[in-house]
Amino acid sequence: MTSPLDVPDGPGVGASLGVPVAVAWLEDRPGLRLLDQTLLPGEERYLDLEHEEAVAEAIRSLRVRGAPAIGVAAAMGLVVGLVRAAASAGGGADSAAYDRIETLLGATRPTGRNLSWALRRMRAAWERPGVDTTDGPRPPPPWATTPALRTLFGEAEAIRREDAALCERIGRAGVEVIPEEGAAVLTHCNAGALATAGIGTALAPLYLAHEAGVPLRVWSCETRPLLQGARLTAWELARAGVDVTVVADSMAGSLMASGEVDLVIVGADAVAANGDVVNKIGTYGLAVLARHHGIPFYVAAPRSTFDPTLASGRDVPIEERDGAEVAEIAGTRVAADRARTRNLAFDVTPEHFVTALVTDRGILRPPYGAAIGELLEEGP
Amino acid sequence: MTSPLDVPDGPGVGASLGVPVAVAWLEDRPGLRLLDQTLLPGEERYLDLEHEEAVAEAIRSLRVRGAPAIGVAAAMGLVVGLVRAAASAGGGADSAAYDRIETLLGATRPTGRNLSWALRRMRAAWERPGVDTTDGPRPPPPWATTPALRTLFGEAEAIRREDAALCERIGRAGVEVIPEEGAAVLTHCNAGALATAGIGTALAPLYLAHEAGVPLRVWSCETRPLLQGARLTAWELARAGVDVTVVADSMAGSLMASGEVDLVIVGADAVAANGDVVNKIGTYGLAVLARHHGIPFYVAAPRSTFDPTLASGRDVPIEERDGAEVAEIAGTRVAADRARTRNLAFDVTPEHFVTALVTDRGILRPPYGAAIGELLEEGP
Repeated sequence: MTSPLDVPDGPGVGASLGVPVAVAWLEDRPGLRLLDQTLLPGEERYLDLEHEEAVAEAIRSLRVRGAPAIGVAAAMGLVVGLVRAAASAGGGADSAAYDRIETLLGATRPTGRNLSWALRRMRAAWERPGVDTTDGPRPPPPWATTPALRTLFGEAEAIRREDAALCERIGRAGVEVIPEEGAAVLTHCNAGALATAGIGTALAPLYLAHEAGVPLRVWSCETRPLLQGARLTAWELARAGVDVTVVADSMAGSLMASGEVDLVIVGADAVAANGDVVNKIGTYGLAVLARHHGIPFYVAAPRSTFDPTLASGRDVPIEERDGAEVAEIAGTRVAADRARTRNLAFDVTPEHFVTALVTDRGILRPPYGAAIGELLEEGP
Repeated sequence: MTSPLDVPDGPGVGASLGVPVAVAWLEDRPGLRLLDQTLLPGEERYLDLEHEEAVAEAIRSLRVRGAPAIGVAAAMGLVVGLVRAAASAGGGADSAAYDRIETLLGATRPTGRNLSWALRRMRAAWERPGVDTTDGPRPPPPWATTPALRTLFGEAEAIRREDAALCERIGRAGVEVIPEEGAAVLTHCNAGALATAGIGTALAPLYLAHEAGVPLRVWSCETRPLLQGARLTAWELARAGVDVTVVADSMAGSLMASGEVDLVIVGADAVAANGDVVNKIGTYGLAVLARHHGIPFYVAAPRSTFDPTLASGRDVPIEERDGAEVAEIAGTRVAADRARTRNLAFDVTPEHFVTALVTDRGILRPPYGAAIGELLEEGP
């Protein structure tokens, strides 16, 4: 099966490197091409999805994951479903079909800021079909046969394209914190191309530095319990030719002590108004270790990740996930039956551990309160 | 199959709690009863080994592991092999048989301070068969039919009993650092009953505190890559009725930040003359985190773990193990094929992170140089 890298909606920047594309349009017919992330790292298989039910299943089953990528896939899936509904109705699509498909896709994941945000944007486009949203470089395809379908296609394409552009802007801002002579960079979890419609957030500066010929050595913490670092980050960096080494999470301190880490860069699930960072469990420990060793600790995130309703990280309820994620690996029980488990999904890194926040609007440095306030007040 | 807890060479202290016994004599015939640790935590199966080849296989295959337990098993296996050789020779055992069995057992693990140490002790006993080493509470069994075999039995039994006694003394020293009103204790890897012939080193104070009714909550870091914390420590603590919770290694920082850890206690593979501690990878990171949060960090080890030939931890070459331990879990590949792996087995925790060293000779506090010098100069 052809990799979506060969189709024009690969991420412009990074595509020549072999950065994978998590979600793309099919070239010749209404549909999505999704990289099935549940098969990674063992197999790189792309799924051609031509039915909204298939898109919903793919989101539910984590075949596509990462908040931005999910939002993009849902918006595109809505278009595909509506085209199918219109064809079987012999012409235009009706509100009942729209409502049904929107509900289906909106219910795929219990939480998901980007998912509901993308569907709200699509709803707004649906309710103003006269507005031309197809101002991008990609013309509406022949299968978008009505003005409403062309408008929806344009909006989904805009969501996809904007996400790719955000990633690129984060990359361009972040590449400045990577020494030109090269660097050993430690990262955690997956904040890469697989989580977005572009070249990722935390990994975006690494791709751009690598493309510019900066010698990089990346340490990818495996990120227990779900191993996104070993399975996903290492896979996508290696695919793009970046020198990446997987280590157990507990090896980070030792690497820092031996001078083998020049900087740490991670993504974020949320950034509070004061700069506190909510991210994958283990991020906080890495931040404390980095501070102890005098190593810069960067957090990369688009403006949409900053949450003005959170005064600080203390306001964030931390999700506790199924203990089986810790107690079992690949279906094998590894923890004693009679032992309990605790499985916090995220932790909070207080802002004073963060050397800088790398955003699509540039680099923010402490004190963060004012800088974040300005960031959130800026126009689009 | 009867658990060795029911036979008199269970660890005196702790036995009533259900602390497991890694290695014991068979009651009625020459042989060892070993808990097959490769089956944990799924199955608690004891192997009755009546042939030196079976004992060697058990050590090679990690059915018994932990330096002290391996030394004890090898000494006992030597006796069992020699009794078998003597019986088939129709009387006494000869030097050729001794040499063959000693070589077999000595080659089971590439490194292993206790293994070669135990075999040297046995060799010395073999070379002075007139000396009565059977001064312990357990009389020589009827199957030790010659003075030489009785001497060897007595020496192996002394090695076993001394190891159990060391554990108990570490426990009695260490119980003083556990608040009587109860504590939340974090530990790493397995420095427990499964690694010794007694109640362990780091876990010994916990067993004694639990036996004394002190309410404990133990956090067992799973200890990637080989998961000794999840598989072994959690299993043996739960078996003894201690409240134990398995967490991903990367959750330790978050637990400390939320005030859910009162103290950390770990074992050691070696302690340098200045107090630097060599232990399982991840120990150093926990020590830095503990220091940052003002949490006491204790290291428990018998005097034999202190190495006067190491001026500091900087002198220790750190073993790098097969990357497959990180890249694969339970036979499933979890890391990207094209990614490299790095798998350091140990790290070094500088002495200034260690609140106290808990030894079989009492608690040592900084400055460690002088205290360790005195410890090593003491008589037996």
